[in-house]
Amino acid sequence: MKVLITGGAGFLGQKLARALLARGTLSGAHGTQQKIDQLVLADVVTANDFGDPRVRVVTGDIADAGLLRELVDADTASVFHLAAIVSGQAEADFDLGMRINLDASRLLLEACRAAGHKPRVVFTSSVAVYGGQLPDVVRDDTALNPQSSYGTQKAIGELLLNDFSRKGFVDGRVLRLPTISVRPGKPNKAASSFASGIIREPLNGEQAICPVSPSLRLWLLSPRRAIAALIAGHELSAQALGNSRTINLPGLSVSVAEMVAALEKVAGPEVTARITFAPDPAIERIVQSWPGAWDVSRARALGLEGDADFESVIRSHIEDELTPAK
Amino acid sequence: MKVLITGGAGFLGQKLARALLARGTLSGAHGTQQKIDQLVLADVVTANDFGDPRVRVVTGDIADAGLLRELVDADTASVFHLAAIVSGQAEADFDLGMRINLDASRLLLEACRAAGHKPRVVFTSSVAVYGGQLPDVVRDDTALNPQSSYGTQKAIGELLLNDFSRKGFVDGRVLRLPTISVRPGKPNKAASSFASGIIREPLNGEQAICPVSPSLRLWLLSPRRAIAALIAGHELSAQALGNSRTINLPGLSVSVAEMVAALEKVAGPEVTARITFAPDPAIERIVQSWPGAWDVSRARALGLEGDADFESVIRSHIEDELTPAK
Repeated sequence: MKVLITGGAGFLGQKLARALLARGTLSGAHGTQQKIDQLVLADVVTANDFGDPRVRVVTGDIADAGLLRELVDADTASVFHLAAIVSGQAEADFDLGMRINLDASRLLLEACRAAGHKPRVVFTSSVAVYGGQLPDVVRDDTALNPQSSYGTQKAIGELLLNDFSRKGFVDGRVLRLPTISVRPGKPNKAASSFASGIIREPLNGEQAICPVSPSLRLWLLSPRRAIAALIAGHELSAQALGNSRTINLPGLSVSVAEMVAALEKVAGPEVTARITFAPDPAIERIVQSWPGAWDVSRARALGLEGDADFESVIRSHIEDELTPAK
Repeated sequence: MKVLITGGAGFLGQKLARALLARGTLSGAHGTQQKIDQLVLADVVTANDFGDPRVRVVTGDIADAGLLRELVDADTASVFHLAAIVSGQAEADFDLGMRINLDASRLLLEACRAAGHKPRVVFTSSVAVYGGQLPDVVRDDTALNPQSSYGTQKAIGELLLNDFSRKGFVDGRVLRLPTISVRPGKPNKAASSFASGIIREPLNGEQAICPVSPSLRLWLLSPRRAIAALIAGHELSAQALGNSRTINLPGLSVSVAEMVAALEKVAGPEVTARITFAPDPAIERIVQSWPGAWDVSRARALGLEGDADFESVIRSHIEDELTPAK
């Protein structure tokens, strides 16, 4: 089987690629495990191929219909669609967000439909689809009311994937990812970038600025658990999903103050002293519109699990990113 | 001011045009009533201009970006976007539904954005945005889970209009219309076509086939009230709408059996004897996925009203459509 990852050069794409190459198989057309013969990593920047002969790197514009038709062929059994313009950037550049988050998603679904064999498509969505007047605890059947263009575009992608699945064009599943923390690397233009930065930068001996108040609650998932959920979500049978292909993944509901306290416990007060609070109303407005507490009984019933606590999230970040490979 | 109605040759478009011409004004940029100098009726078929010099009829493809840019200019203060492919047809012809219900809506919003003066846009949506496991009573904040391509496309249009409004590109409002009954004219390809046919055809001395069971509950609005709601929805201030531009209009929750009983009361058993029940599983599946009972407190608080009872709906149909003009 052939597997395609869009956004394959990104942080999640690269981690997912490593995990799939190590695993070697995925559930195929009839629910049996099949060997991954080729893993296509498509992105606008050139992905790392890990020196693995199964990897094919394709560099190009994911909103180009021609490229997508070339990427999805008769052997493409599974697609992980991770390519996206992040929230802050989609808010600043409306047309770019529409082009990548909406048009490219639709073109990808059309390419899968044209392939004719109902590929399995895993689509990542976001807490940003929620907003406005929210109940204390958000459930899978709480109405979407995005207060950002990113959230709007993700919500539209969810609707399209559900309808393309219902029509039998693809076998899709949408995983609504909590905010991923701790992301390795540099800050990005996501409004939630600080949710990694306030842990990552202090651990690296750098200053971090937190643009939201300590009481703000976030809904977080570690990179390790996110990758595990992407694969577990892929492996679910279509029957298990019923009449909605969209699943809220289990996250940790933690306040910024609790994150800082966990960091202090793991790394000491000299590390947390590197965090400065400097509220940014634009970021606070976006992030505050996302819910902090969730009912994820459906995800749990489907066997999808989050992290145990935020201390273990910090420890796994240190193990995966800050511990020299032996 | 200039007003544009897309789907202006359709049954609602023509009734709305008559009502606007009779009224003569609409709320303008600063909330003051302004004279309607030109009413543009755009449709793929040629609209009736009622011999009124204020009417300009444009015949063309509403999914053509060039036509839309021509339709929306610096004087276009208000747009009523009624053009749509109905549910049954959008299910049968997926690409046509996507083109008219999604692409044309987006192109229209882009044309309004390009005009630069934040036109007021009234967009009609549908009960078909709901589906799946529903609560007994649907509220404005019940999650959308459309079980048809039409419902999916309408839900996407709602999301786009909300985001274009939030960004300040348009001043939009979405009215989720109950199933309109009694529509005049011929049956159409909407899955809900029978909801008018079982009243209209027997009153015309014709046989009618009801494809759903008598116990099925519908959520109905008369053409008179629909037109009143479109205008009242236009007149609402943006402030009154808060952080959601989408409003469930008040309808009547009635079973098919209650509709038939009301018809018998108004027109007698010889008329209802013309109705035959012949279940069509494809139609029943779509219509059953729509909710039959609603909490419309938000619409009521905004001053939007539905019909008093189904007998009065039948009587208004007889007055408007079956009584010779004096």
